[in-house]
Amino acid sequence: MKKWYTSSGNNSDVVMSTRIRLARNLHEYPFPARLDQKGETQVCEKVRDALFGGNSHMKDEFAYIKMDSLSETEAVALAEKHLISPEFASERAGRALILNKDESVSIMLCEEDHVRIQVMAPGLDMEGAYETADKIDTLLDSALGFAFDENLGYLTQCPTNLGTGMRASVMLHLPALTACGQIGKLASTVSKLGLTIRGSYGEGSETKGDFYQLSNQVTLGISEKAAMDNLKSITMQLVERERNLRKEMIGSAQIQDKIFRAYGVLKYSRVLSSAEFMELISLVRLGACEKLLDISQENISEVISAAQPASLILAKGENAETQQRDISRAELVRTKLG
Amino acid sequence: MKKWYTSSGNNSDVVMSTRIRLARNLHEYPFPARLDQKGETQVCEKVRDALFGGNSHMKDEFAYIKMDSLSETEAVALAEKHLISPEFASERAGRALILNKDESVSIMLCEEDHVRIQVMAPGLDMEGAYETADKIDTLLDSALGFAFDENLGYLTQCPTNLGTGMRASVMLHLPALTACGQIGKLASTVSKLGLTIRGSYGEGSETKGDFYQLSNQVTLGISEKAAMDNLKSITMQLVERERNLRKEMIGSAQIQDKIFRAYGVLKYSRVLSSAEFMELISLVRLGACEKLLDISQENISEVISAAQPASLILAKGENAETQQRDISRAELVRTKLG
Repeated sequence: MKKWYTSSGNNSDVVMSTRIRLARNLHEYPFPARLDQKGETQVCEKVRDALFGGNSHMKDEFAYIKMDSLSETEAVALAEKHLISPEFASERAGRALILNKDESVSIMLCEEDHVRIQVMAPGLDMEGAYETADKIDTLLDSALGFAFDENLGYLTQCPTNLGTGMRASVMLHLPALTACGQIGKLASTVSKLGLTIRGSYGEGSETKGDFYQLSNQVTLGISEKAAMDNLKSITMQLVERERNLRKEMIGSAQIQDKIFRAYGVLKYSRVLSSAEFMELISLVRLGACEKLLDISQENISEVISAAQPASLILAKGENAETQQRDISRAELVRTKLG
Repeated sequence: MKKWYTSSGNNSDVVMSTRIRLARNLHEYPFPARLDQKGETQVCEKVRDALFGGNSHMKDEFAYIKMDSLSETEAVALAEKHLISPEFASERAGRALILNKDESVSIMLCEEDHVRIQVMAPGLDMEGAYETADKIDTLLDSALGFAFDENLGYLTQCPTNLGTGMRASVMLHLPALTACGQIGKLASTVSKLGLTIRGSYGEGSETKGDFYQLSNQVTLGISEKAAMDNLKSITMQLVERERNLRKEMIGSAQIQDKIFRAYGVLKYSRVLSSAEFMELISLVRLGACEKLLDISQENISEVISAAQPASLILAKGENAETQQRDISRAELVRTKLG
């Protein structure tokens, strides 16, 4: 089964993916922070049954995974693919994950909220991702009854999610804006517009290889549509700026040299750290988007996903030390990269 | 016509080439430092006529080149290939060069001495190179009469060449000894044995890419054979030490990584300086000798020769600036390197 992240979509030279996340809570249970073990089990099973109950199509499409059945490595590998939050991977007891086959839909149960519906789509596709999330939301709401207040909207454990409970985000590849030192200024500009830009693994994560996450911050007093339109409009402005800068840069022999050297090193290195890999693959992705290198974006996305530390360990079936992992990464990259 | 330096020879994993140089002077003329223009012309033409006179085979085999007919770039390109000395390239008036087709024999006229017969051979081949040099020496001596003293031997302008007038040298590739920081110690050891080790472009030249020249220093009170045997024996000791160290190093993932990355960069870079090229090609040569890379030594020698600054300018037919030359070098290397 082809995973969602091995496809490309609209504007995917700059927008790698779109994500819609809805935070929901069952009205009859306390928030996860105050929920006991029994309550957690009930919440998880109620959501599972609401989704699967009498619906064989859903059962075929989705897997129900008790998080404590996973090893830490398996859980971290899911976080590396952005299917769950890093925090959800580290505390697995009492939690469950519902995941569809192409991994575009993942529902975390008993994360910060009872239910976190997350839908990913390649490229810029806010409407597509939202539509899927909305369907699941409607289905679960009608069966379970989500905590909702006429004035406040959806009730969430953390007040920053109150209202729509929606976080829409896009994963951006901004090598040109980064090279020109414009990210700092950008961050302060977008924050005035109700958005935040940060490293690709969300809150507190470091930027790796010029990949960023841009997301809406405001969930109260704004409709889902307005929030998405705002994010989309600013995203498209960034896309244009990034494209223009790329066009300016790409003619330079020095930039071309950096791109081709990055490709040469990825195709030949025998030891490759995660940080260096991200830096080089970013250059290669820039080269591929600008047609200097004949490599598909899908191939690059697949390699990025497979080269992350936990995914590598899983693929090799061993709990490798960093040194061995860096050797495995080099081997994987030179084999898989087009 | 295949050039001598695109062949490989005995022990050429470590010994890239052997050179024999004989310094000779015509007894009836003052040394070049005290020779006027007319005298220079006479010396050059006398040697030419002695070599070519009535010998059509020699005429076909050798070219007579008046150095002032060459541009500076053309002359420097000859020095880059070790066919003439850098000093001979920079002062061309009154001087001439006799060069055979495969460029293994070059005779500098009116360099520091009237005649400098130089014979190069791939790999370690002191006898072969000496035999050829000796034949030319005998032929010229019988026709011209070289300045010779019963007690001192051949008379030369600089007293350091008095006696045999012979400088035997080998060009060594010592990446492992260099990496292990042993060159300094080596230099002081061989100097006690009457030898000197230095950068690949001889006296005062910087080491580039782990390539060194090892040569005999003593010309007085020692026969040609004894000097060559001494050089050969010490060379073989270095060869063994270098080989043993290479065997120890080559299993390391870090060393393999360095070698393959060097190859990756040479195959993909778009801008390549001379210094970086020499550093990387040295690693690639190590990898090729140790069978990590399937590239012939001949191919590497050819690329090294063609990638030198003046040779590059000649090939492109333009007096390129450094930046353009670095672009041309990258292009040449990725096209020609196997």
